[in-house]
Amino acid sequence: MTTTTHPQTTISADPALPTIHITREFNAPVDAVFHAHVDPDLVSKWLGPRSVTMRVDRWDATTGGAYRYVHARGDEEYRFYGSFHEVRAGERIVQTFTYEGFPDGVALETLTFEDLGGGRTRLHIVSVFETTEGRDAAMASGMETGVVEGYEQLDDLLAEA
Amino acid sequence: MTTTTHPQTTISADPALPTIHITREFNAPVDAVFHAHVDPDLVSKWLGPRSVTMRVDRWDATTGGAYRYVHARGDEEYRFYGSFHEVRAGERIVQTFTYEGFPDGVALETLTFEDLGGGRTRLHIVSVFETTEGRDAAMASGMETGVVEGYEQLDDLLAEA
Repeated sequence: MTTTTHPQTTISADPALPTIHITREFNAPVDAVFHAHVDPDLVSKWLGPRSVTMRVDRWDATTGGAYRYVHARGDEEYRFYGSFHEVRAGERIVQTFTYEGFPDGVALETLTFEDLGGGRTRLHIVSVFETTEGRDAAMASGMETGVVEGYEQLDDLLAEA
Repeated sequence: MTTTTHPQTTISADPALPTIHITREFNAPVDAVFHAHVDPDLVSKWLGPRSVTMRVDRWDATTGGAYRYVHARGDEEYRFYGSFHEVRAGERIVQTFTYEGFPDGVALETLTFEDLGGGRTRLHIVSVFETTEGRDAAMASGMETGVVEGYEQLDDLLAEA
């Protein structure tokens, strides 16, 4: 058995705004971390909790593109979709996000990829919701497990490359 | 000269959230008002202030689609783009919005079309920004003229139909 120490994922809700901030560092160059967010074959290997398998129906990570995917766990299926407002290579992705179980809930997510030098990268995500209640529901949905485990799987994928 | 009385457009900034709410009623059925938002030939006839002409480069008003357009006034050009997160026929459009002059500023806009009966429609828009400063900058940008005059032009277009 291999024991791996993963960088810490920070997830915080803003007290004054309906936003969630996520920060995570990766021991990989910014281009590799960015590429793992836009290539659907790679995305399907890391996004979400360990307990699900991911099927990508659409993943067109370009400005004006869109995505749709399913997370399956046994007989259960969880469907998600959104659009790519902007994809700025190696720097920034702005996308929308909806879980179909709450079809009227939408978040706007801005991902910023920061080159820390030395082959390391910091990812910062701001998700903004229409209401504080919507943000709180997302925080209470178990998203933390998916985010933390997803980035651990991404660590492993980046280490293989 | 014809004098026309237009319904009032209400634009308000939320004191506690980084949002703008816009409400406007139309003397036209909900399907007509909705159609005028998704058909690019119609959109180009009403969207924005009277002082500009609009050229649509892309207007794919479907879930996962996107748009891009130019407002021209003399030699000046103002470019805007975004993606359509969801288009729910006759009911709801969720889209993103960026003015290229402020390329890092993004709003998430939810348009709700309400059938008031008697061939009348209420449109309600919520725009949410990442920060209160971003919202305040949008409010200060002269958007009010574009919104008010745009809907007056839409009134005229709907009256012709």
